[in-house]
This record gives sequence, structure tokens and C-alpha cells, in this order.
Amino acid sequence: MRDVAIIGVGLTKCGELWEQSLRDLYVEAALKAIKNAGIDHIDSMYVGCMSSGLFVGQEHLGALMADYLGQAPVAATRVESACASGGAALRMGYLDVASGASDIVLVGGVEKMTDVSGDAATYALATASDQEWEAFGGITFPGLYALMAMAHMERYKTTSRQLAAVAVKNHANGAKNPAAQFPAIITVDDVLNSVMVADPLHILDCSPISDGAAAVILCPADQAKTLCQHLPVKIVGSGMATDTIALHSRKDLTSLDAVTKAAAAAYRQASKVPSDIQVCEVHDCFTIAEIMVSEALGFFEKGKGGNAVETGATAIGGKIPINTSGGLKAKGHPVGATGVAQAVEIVEQLRGGAGARQVAKARIGMTQNMGGTGASAVVHILEAM
Amino acid sequence: MRDVAIIGVGLTKCGELWEQSLRDLYVEAALKAIKNAGIDHIDSMYVGCMSSGLFVGQEHLGALMADYLGQAPVAATRVESACASGGAALRMGYLDVASGASDIVLVGGVEKMTDVSGDAATYALATASDQEWEAFGGITFPGLYALMAMAHMERYKTTSRQLAAVAVKNHANGAKNPAAQFPAIITVDDVLNSVMVADPLHILDCSPISDGAAAVILCPADQAKTLCQHLPVKIVGSGMATDTIALHSRKDLTSLDAVTKAAAAAYRQASKVPSDIQVCEVHDCFTIAEIMVSEALGFFEKGKGGNAVETGATAIGGKIPINTSGGLKAKGHPVGATGVAQAVEIVEQLRGGAGARQVAKARIGMTQNMGGTGASAVVHILEAM
Repeated sequence: MRDVAIIGVGLTKCGELWEQSLRDLYVEAALKAIKNAGIDHIDSMYVGCMSSGLFVGQEHLGALMADYLGQAPVAATRVESACASGGAALRMGYLDVASGASDIVLVGGVEKMTDVSGDAATYALATASDQEWEAFGGITFPGLYALMAMAHMERYKTTSRQLAAVAVKNHANGAKNPAAQFPAIITVDDVLNSVMVADPLHILDCSPISDGAAAVILCPADQAKTLCQHLPVKIVGSGMATDTIALHSRKDLTSLDAVTKAAAAAYRQASKVPSDIQVCEVHDCFTIAEIMVSEALGFFEKGKGGNAVETGATAIGGKIPINTSGGLKAKGHPVGATGVAQAVEIVEQLRGGAGARQVAKARIGMTQNMGGTGASAVVHILEAM
Repeated sequence: MRDVAIIGVGLTKCGELWEQSLRDLYVEAALKAIKNAGIDHIDSMYVGCMSSGLFVGQEHLGALMADYLGQAPVAATRVESACASGGAALRMGYLDVASGASDIVLVGGVEKMTDVSGDAATYALATASDQEWEAFGGITFPGLYALMAMAHMERYKTTSRQLAAVAVKNHANGAKNPAAQFPAIITVDDVLNSVMVADPLHILDCSPISDGAAAVILCPADQAKTLCQHLPVKIVGSGMATDTIALHSRKDLTSLDAVTKAAAAAYRQASKVPSDIQVCEVHDCFTIAEIMVSEALGFFEKGKGGNAVETGATAIGGKIPINTSGGLKAKGHPVGATGVAQAVEIVEQLRGGAGARQVAKARIGMTQNMGGTGASAVVHILEAM
């Protein structure tokens, strides 16, 4: 396998972007990444997107985006793994370059979620669960994650204040991110006093419905220093794993086995251990998710994730800064874009270009993206070259 | 890049399979392919599917199918390129093995199209066109291909009888295929007397709405002879290309540039020319498509494809047998499955196992799969080892 580097990054703002269509968003992020890399062509491209069919009545996104980006006839493929579609697309682009089939590859993620009603968006998102056993029965994602939170609270004495601490930290980080959808500073009491969506999850425990796109440019690592205008960042580990799609089929509601296994594969490939990671973007679709993921990645012992966030271990300046971008919670969660946006943030951190959110001397970072209740998970480890 | 071989194939029947769900179909084809290969594990898997979100309210197919196949926690990713989703999934599986990331990879394609009304299916299929400029304006695929047919007839004097000859040949082949949805023998007059859908395309010029799935098992070519119970078949060329998504943006309605470019890439990689190909499965979503594709692949001069089919050049026993399976027209067109089903047919031909449809002494074959009006195209060249 050839070593692969990221040499360009691009990001749109996240939010209710009523002036921009699905294709506008992808093209904006892609053009920014191409400009950031300073390249004059691409060999192939990927589009991570969860459900453009249900959100805007458009499939065939590879061809659509290649065309609107002015890049046809390059090979272009859409990749889907629910909310991990962006991470899965990054992995496909990585394999494309690693195989030797392509040299310069664009990987973009996009979702346009606000053109439909809240009910329709909730229905579209529920297609990431087991349609026949979960969605059809009426449960949606806040309910599923509430079950996981209840189990974690019961077994490990995790508290609502600890869940709230995730949101408070991520909004504090997001307030320093110009791309964030909700850069507002909030308090633990704000979270606890916000409307209950699915006990114990308040609305401020939940990530929002967002429009947005993100993109990165990949190339062989041995060409990166010549091509790249910035410090190139190498993908030193890429892992993907799956779990039962239905939550009720899991032996343990408090574990995220696919995350643990995807991370194990990435750590093994990179010859790294959790303590090597200096900055990490994780999939905080709900506050409980960040706590469970921080345990699954090996940063904290099982059941200690709640305490870790409450005591500042995951804040900027803490033991392992998590979601410096503001995470899905504050930056926003355009689902197909999220996995790619995580890579954009880590590259900015490793380049030293994260401004007010910068983690000092960060050289090694990680992204963790997941679909559904963790039925699919993708983990990448990135290292400054 | 490592060389890659196909060592197992599996196929469901195509049709209105009301007793089988989306997941049932994928699992049936996958288990058949696993059994056919004689393997006891897989390292990763792909699911080609166009629009399960619109057809059955289910996304996240990688995780779903890995779970229902009993293969979680393997990495599993859904790939979409409209009606070329199966071909695109095959290419992703190919890159995964070629890169060295995985050794044994399952690539399956599936679509469950008959759980919705005909109108809803037509809407779902129209999401492969440019939603904002074509679908929103009310044109659907029969109309788009009718425009291409009209242009071809105008410029090259292609006739309705020549279009009909494609359907007649493919039904004759499909009558020999136990998996075919419509194995009925038909005549040119049957086609010409059938109801007009979009002038000049009659209903018997159109492929059907189908449920079905297909699967193949890939491995490194140097392990194929050890692992494989059958004659292994090497993927000697893989090409993908794109074109404008909207038909009105093309310079020439009678050309399929993405097909020509995808084929050029595959021919170059395989060091082959069109006359080397002994059997070919092409994307005959409409009869005109087969004629245009047979020209774009270099089998016949531009404008001569209609005459070629009418004079038997593409029949079994002819210069280049096309769609021995019955093609999309007679075998059926479960859109996400089609590209993989084409590979299944070519592997059967190269193994000498195609029964009454066998092309004598076939050693080199090709598959050509496309999305929309040819906005994406995937071509693979396969050779018996």
C-alpha cells in the first residue's frame, strides 16, 4: 500500500443555508479544498452523503458533483454509511490512492437537510436504524440514544450534569469556530433547563439539523511535500467496523464495539496507542455518544467518560482535547459532511492553523465518525509529516 | 497494485419478489457467492444500491447487510452511482483488494423496487437525472432515452425495427436463463405493436422494474487458484468515467462519452482492444442504449450499432455476443444489482458454465454499467486465469 497524505481542506459554514443547494455546498467546499491544496487537477472524487434521495430528491451524486465542479469525466462515486458517510468516503479515497489507481483524489461530504420539514428530516435520519424493527416501530434516534444514556447512567452513575458538560465544552469550542452553526456559549443549567426530547436527553444534548459540506484533497505521501503549500498530514491509520444495526441486538447498551474495533485497526496500522493522540474529533450526535466514544477509543476507562469531561480532561488544554471544532453539537451535523469535516479540523490543528481553538504542539490527531447507534464506525489517525 | 480475481458468484432470481425483502435478497446472493467460492470468511464488504431510502425507507446498507449476513464487525460500505451502483461497488471492492487493505472482499448489489407504486418507482429512478433541471421539469428516463433514440435515428437512419431487434435478441437469450424475470420469446412485431411509452420507445423497448440481488467474491489473484473451487477469473481492467448529468448539456445526444472513456481506461489497463472481447454484458436499460453502448465500446463504427444487432452480430454465435444473460431487458433490472449481475454472467461464461447460453471458448469478457443517461459509466474487463 502507498502512504497517503491530506494536502488540502475546505469547509462551508454549517447552518440553515437556504440560499445554497446540495450541489452549491459540495462545490463550495471542494473548490476551497482544491485552492487550499494548490492543485490544478484531480484524478477521481468521492461524495459522502447519507440520504439526498429523501432530503432533496437527488441520487447519482458522483456524476452530479463531478459535472457541477467542472471535473467530468473523472471517476466519481457516492459513498453512504448513514452519519458515517463522510468517514466512509474518506476511507474510499484513501484506498483509491493507496492502491495506486489514482494520485490526486477529492473527498467531499455533503448534506442538505433543511429543505424538508422536521418530521421528514426525522424520518430520513431514522433510515439509519433498522427500518423493519426500529424505525417502523416508531422509535427515532433521540429515543435510541436515550436508551443508551439510561443504561450508562444506571451502570456507571453517569449524571445528567456530566452529559450537559459535553454540550457546554463543545459550545465553548464552537464559539471559536467561524464555521459553527451554534457558536453560543451555554451553561450546564441551560442544558438541564432546556426542553426534554427523550429522557434523559434535553434538546441541548442533541446535535442539530444542518446544511453543510466539507472536502479534503488526498495524494501519495511521497508527492505531498512537492505538491502541498502547507504542512502535509499523513493518514497513518484507517479502520472501519460494523455492529448489529438494531440496538436491541447488542449484548451491552453501554459499549460501542464497532468504534472499539475500528479504532483497534487504526491504532494497529499506525503503531499508536490512545495516549499518543493529542487531539480528537468524535461523533457527538448526542452528548452521551461523546462520553461512550471517549471510552471506546481507549482515552478513559469504561464508565469514566462522564467524569473526564466534567473535570476538563477533554477540554482544550486537558489530557485529550475532544471536539475542538465544537463537534456535531455546536459546529453542526450535516450528516454526510461530518466525517470529512472532522478531518478538516484535525488537519487545521496539525498544521497549527486552528486559531483560538489551537491545541498546542499537536502532531498526531484522530477522527471518529459513526452511523446509526454505532452500527458502523470509521476511525482515522492523522500525523503531521 | 495487486492483481485481483473473482472466485465466487451468486445471483437471485429477478422479478416481483414479494416474499423477499431488501435484506433477504442481498443475503441470498451473498451466501450463494460465498458458497460458490468455498471461503470461510470475508475481510470487508460492499453494497451497491441506488435508492433504498426512497424504495423501502432504509439507508445504512453496509451495516445492515453485514449484520444480517452474520459478518459484523467487518468493514461494510454502501456505494451509489444510480443504475451503475453495482459496477461502482465492484470497482470499490477491486480497489480494496488491489490496495492490500483486504484480501477477501464480498461485493453485492441489490434493489427492492416493487414495494412502491409505479409512480413512486418512476420518481425514485428520476433522482438519477438532474433533479433541478430534468426531474423537476417532469421528464423521466423513458423520455430522456427517447430523445437519444430520436437523435440516433435522425443522424444514422437507425430504425424502430433495429431497436426492436435488441429486445428480440435479449429475450431469446433470457429464455435460456433461469434467473430471468421475462424469459418469454418475442418478435419484432410484438415490440412494434406494444404500447408506446415515449416515441419511439415502446414498452418492449424498456427494461422492467425488478427486485433482485447479485454478489461476487474477490481476492488477490495470486491466492485465487488456491482458494477457488472453479476457474478463477482475473479483473484485468477497471475504468470509470463521468459526463454531464443533464442530457441537454451534451454536445451530442448520440454519443456516450463516459462509456467511451471508462472503456478506454479499462482497455489501456488490460492491454486489450475491442476485438479481443469475446462476450459482453451491456447496460440495455432501453433498446437504444444497447445500440449506442455497442458503438461507444468500439465494437462497431458510430451509427452501425443498429445494423449490427439486426444482422446477428451481437447474438450468441455472432461477432461479439452481447447480453447473453438476457440483459436488463429480459433478465431484469434491479438497478443496484445490475452491475454485479453482469459480472456474474461474464464469470459464468468464462468458466464455461453458462449452459444453453454458453459462448464457445470465451476467455475474455467485459461488463459495462451506466447511471442515468450515461452520466456515470463503469467498465470491467475479465479474463480467465
